[in-house]
Amino acid sequence: MLSQEDIAGRPALVINRAGTLPLALICEHASHYIPRGFNNLGLRKEAKKSHAAWDIGAFAISQLLSEKLNAPLVASGVSRLVYDCNRPPDASDAMPSATELVDIPGNHFLSKRERQERLQSYYEPFRLAVSKLMAKGMKALVTVHSFTPIFHREYRTVELGVLYDTDTRLADAMMEHAFTETNLETRRNEPYGPDHGVMHTIRDHGIENGVPNVMLEIRNDLLVPASKHEEIAQNLARLIAVSLRDLDFDLPEED
Amino acid sequence: MLSQEDIAGRPALVINRAGTLPLALICEHASHYIPRGFNNLGLRKEAKKSHAAWDIGAFAISQLLSEKLNAPLVASGVSRLVYDCNRPPDASDAMPSATELVDIPGNHFLSKRERQERLQSYYEPFRLAVSKLMAKGMKALVTVHSFTPIFHREYRTVELGVLYDTDTRLADAMMEHAFTETNLETRRNEPYGPDHGVMHTIRDHGIENGVPNVMLEIRNDLLVPASKHEEIAQNLARLIAVSLRDLDFDLPEED
Repeated sequence: MLSQEDIAGRPALVINRAGTLPLALICEHASHYIPRGFNNLGLRKEAKKSHAAWDIGAFAISQLLSEKLNAPLVASGVSRLVYDCNRPPDASDAMPSATELVDIPGNHFLSKRERQERLQSYYEPFRLAVSKLMAKGMKALVTVHSFTPIFHREYRTVELGVLYDTDTRLADAMMEHAFTETNLETRRNEPYGPDHGVMHTIRDHGIENGVPNVMLEIRNDLLVPASKHEEIAQNLARLIAVSLRDLDFDLPEED
Repeated sequence: MLSQEDIAGRPALVINRAGTLPLALICEHASHYIPRGFNNLGLRKEAKKSHAAWDIGAFAISQLLSEKLNAPLVASGVSRLVYDCNRPPDASDAMPSATELVDIPGNHFLSKRERQERLQSYYEPFRLAVSKLMAKGMKALVTVHSFTPIFHREYRTVELGVLYDTDTRLADAMMEHAFTETNLETRRNEPYGPDHGVMHTIRDHGIENGVPNVMLEIRNDLLVPASKHEEIAQNLARLIAVSLRDLDFDLPEED
């Protein structure tokens, strides 16, 4: 397992590239690392490792899925506050000046040149790594995210979100099996959906390539402490495997 | 002036992009920064900031030239030991496993995948930034380097190297004026020349684009301490300006 330290500052990391299952696992928000030259984007210490900067636990879960399913994984080792790799360059929140709870001084009044630099340095290498992987014949795509339990003072009861845009194939299969294969409260397009601007990766690399795709959102209180990761990853790996089998993926049966 | 801290981890930095002189200044070895995920490439502390990791003083001189000449500058904020931006991807020393004095454990036995990751993450953004700048109508290119005074136990007496490949125009002009415009011991293609594999940037972005180009090498004992920078940069700025004027660049006369 790679740690946060291992990926820090490496925007285009491909793990288990030789994995035999043609499923691309993607973790855009794997890291809270801000390259030193950005002076922490002016964030206070607490904010630097908060949910604003990364998806807590998502990198660990992605790696466990990559191991269990023997599928390749692409992860970014740069915080989404520097550039959010799940956003297209023209999105207003690709380099957000604030999130729900955190002001990001280092992202205020960015010039066109500063945006260009970040796009080129942190998004393009990531995008290219995903594109190259897809071109190797990936037949499905799953992105792995986590979300904060409390949002605008409301507690979210959903535990696993199965998010999709126009291609519902993999999401439909997963929803069909979620109740039996996991013990997670699973819902469609919650807590986010196509209207929240979060479909960039699955559109660009899943729908564009015509392969079944889904974005998974795990409530992050289920991922802390790390001792919980193994069970959740086991649940998700099984759920993904049975769902891909429904879509005629050649996968060994499990007991 | 940007410091080492300011550029650390930013592989595609463009400074003074709006500069009015169409001269592209390039500093491939501006930084000794190794992104955290590479675990210092296994280097000991002394080696991490030695000449092996960067060109001492080159970033400061580049910035002073950019100011004095009002010309844009592209610099890399990642150590050449991670990827040497003045080397093409197929060069054996693009990710050197050792230099004259320093063994680099983190570069031993790199897999194709690891090479690909570095190429994509640190070289491509830099290359793209230079390409985009050249496409904006740059009419000359100067790269700024420094070299160590003692190499294989011999002291090098050359102070300024004017390096060139097949296009000698700018180098010829600079050599013609070096004696009167500087107090530096200046030589052609010393301490390196076309046979040393150091012509990548001037070939790829200078010769390819048909614009006069030169690679400058400054002996780094002349650049320490930093209080010496101003005088050297003044010398070089004047030398570059008179030489460009010989090549019909529209530059104001100086006294």
